[in-house]
Amino acid sequence: MKEKIKNIALTSDGSAVRIIDQTRLPGELVYLELREREELYEAIRALRVRGAPAIGIFAAYAVYVLSRSYGEAEFHARLDADIDYLISCRPTAVNLARQAERMRELAHGMTGRPASEITAALRAEAAAIHEEDIAMCRAIAEHGLSLLREGDTVLTHCNAGPLATSEYGTGLGPLLLAAERGMKIGAYVDETRPLLQGARLTAWELQNAGIDATLICDNMAALAMKEGRVQAVLAGCDRMAANGDAANKIGTSGAAIIAKHYGVPVYILLPSSTVDLACPTGADIPIELRSPEEIRSLWYERPMAPEGVKCWNPAFDVTDHELITAVVTEKGVIYPPYDIHLQELFGGDT
Amino acid sequence: MKEKIKNIALTSDGSAVRIIDQTRLPGELVYLELREREELYEAIRALRVRGAPAIGIFAAYAVYVLSRSYGEAEFHARLDADIDYLISCRPTAVNLARQAERMRELAHGMTGRPASEITAALRAEAAAIHEEDIAMCRAIAEHGLSLLREGDTVLTHCNAGPLATSEYGTGLGPLLLAAERGMKIGAYVDETRPLLQGARLTAWELQNAGIDATLICDNMAALAMKEGRVQAVLAGCDRMAANGDAANKIGTSGAAIIAKHYGVPVYILLPSSTVDLACPTGADIPIELRSPEEIRSLWYERPMAPEGVKCWNPAFDVTDHELITAVVTEKGVIYPPYDIHLQELFGGDT
Repeated sequence: MKEKIKNIALTSDGSAVRIIDQTRLPGELVYLELREREELYEAIRALRVRGAPAIGIFAAYAVYVLSRSYGEAEFHARLDADIDYLISCRPTAVNLARQAERMRELAHGMTGRPASEITAALRAEAAAIHEEDIAMCRAIAEHGLSLLREGDTVLTHCNAGPLATSEYGTGLGPLLLAAERGMKIGAYVDETRPLLQGARLTAWELQNAGIDATLICDNMAALAMKEGRVQAVLAGCDRMAANGDAANKIGTSGAAIIAKHYGVPVYILLPSSTVDLACPTGADIPIELRSPEEIRSLWYERPMAPEGVKCWNPAFDVTDHELITAVVTEKGVIYPPYDIHLQELFGGDT
Repeated sequence: MKEKIKNIALTSDGSAVRIIDQTRLPGELVYLELREREELYEAIRALRVRGAPAIGIFAAYAVYVLSRSYGEAEFHARLDADIDYLISCRPTAVNLARQAERMRELAHGMTGRPASEITAALRAEAAAIHEEDIAMCRAIAEHGLSLLREGDTVLTHCNAGPLATSEYGTGLGPLLLAAERGMKIGAYVDETRPLLQGARLTAWELQNAGIDATLICDNMAALAMKEGRVQAVLAGCDRMAANGDAANKIGTSGAAIIAKHYGVPVYILLPSSTVDLACPTGADIPIELRSPEEIRSLWYERPMAPEGVKCWNPAFDVTDHELITAVVTEKGVIYPPYDIHLQELFGGDT
């Protein structure tokens, strides 16, 4: 296993957030240093930084970096405006709002204190959010790995690896932990249209980690399952409702329906910060619609559909809780009924 | 509705097969005139001509064009070699072999007759194969349309339109016929990775015909069905086994499994020449594996997966007969049990 990927960090002087530009992978490993509110927003919008937990960590650092330039009188007004602006960027992911609000709450609790003191506290809070994520991902990986056996091959969808979080990732955590321990677990990797996070990011991360990975188009997963090539489906999650319905990258629900048809278990791996008990069911999760050009022309040498053709480009879908065999969080493996078990585990502290 | 598409024809002097190069669509409408055995083979291999019935028609014309240059002594030896060569190009599609063998049988039945006479008979036979296909597609479209209602929206996968056959197509036939009659039926069009036949060809054909078409990525079909946007799945077929199992473009089986989950009917439309009663079940249909570069780098400005990553690229899958609501051929609509009904309808003459 090669060096672990540092997808998000603060620059040593604290003046910028340093990220891997995920849109340039796998061809180029390019780091960006981002300071301005517009470029921080754009990095989330353009998916230079992506993955629910990663966006949360990024937003926390972004709030700190922006706060460094606020004057005393305008501090809270500008902080509020910048946090609202960042949160508006991607409505489906709950972590973005959650971590930005955590930063806001900290700052509001220090109203009346000098700006420099609040800023220092924001920096420490962002670092804490990051550290918590690393510890959580490690715990998720441990619990997830307990569901797999040597020699298994799993199906992955989108990217829920280190690039999407920190260190182990969520959905990929069990694979990376297995590789560290010399345990052989292979993967079929859905390329994940339209943005190809599977082909560009997951395949790259698994290859980096020395894991036996086979890239497929999303529509090949059914045949892979039919032929017995896959023993489990592992996916991350962008928001889980109180009943266990799981919003994740478009295509996850289709893979889960097919898995159920073939008797392949579906495991959703996520930090507890992604569980939103205030959201009763998947029907209450807004689905972000993105540009038709992501389907028509992005990445391609030339547009691959007729000019002017209508496209429908939902970025997420909701996997019904009845399709989910188990939910894995840093606190352990949860089985149905999810409405009861999620409340028991997270009702007190989320 | 604009002028109908002539995807395959003989040039007026009969020296070449004229096709639309489907790999250049939708950006450019390019016609090719093909004469040499290697370029005829390459056109099938590279999917310049594609779609089970279209390949059959093309192969018939190709056999005629090649036969024009055979000497008297070598006629049957060269004919056999060229037919074997063409058939070897794509193992899953039954029409290629069927129509090429029909040409061979005709020629063999004329052994001892002058080459010019056999060649003339081959030309007439190829034209008859083409005419039969046009009539069949029209009948399939009529029967298929009887299953739909004004205002319905269907999901299409891959391309089973005029480009894949002649005139109406199979899977798209009901839509094109409805448009001719001013009946409103819309379509969600799976882009159909890796070769994007849906985005490049189906969307282009539907747009040409003035049909309300919405392009989606394959992995979005599940959400479209969940949201009630689709009232039926229409697909063509590359080979149907005696029990109704249907080999078609990779991804068809996944769409059918998802459709069953959401109670959306699945209709497979095909000419009876695609029913292979000699093939007991889908397990007996060979699945063609194609190049990893179709997933990794074809169409893209740069490779979209890490260098050296393994890919698995099956071109077809088999939709289990239990997932198929009805089979539509030129002879009418067939319901389960398919093993009995297909035998009843086709046992005598295929």
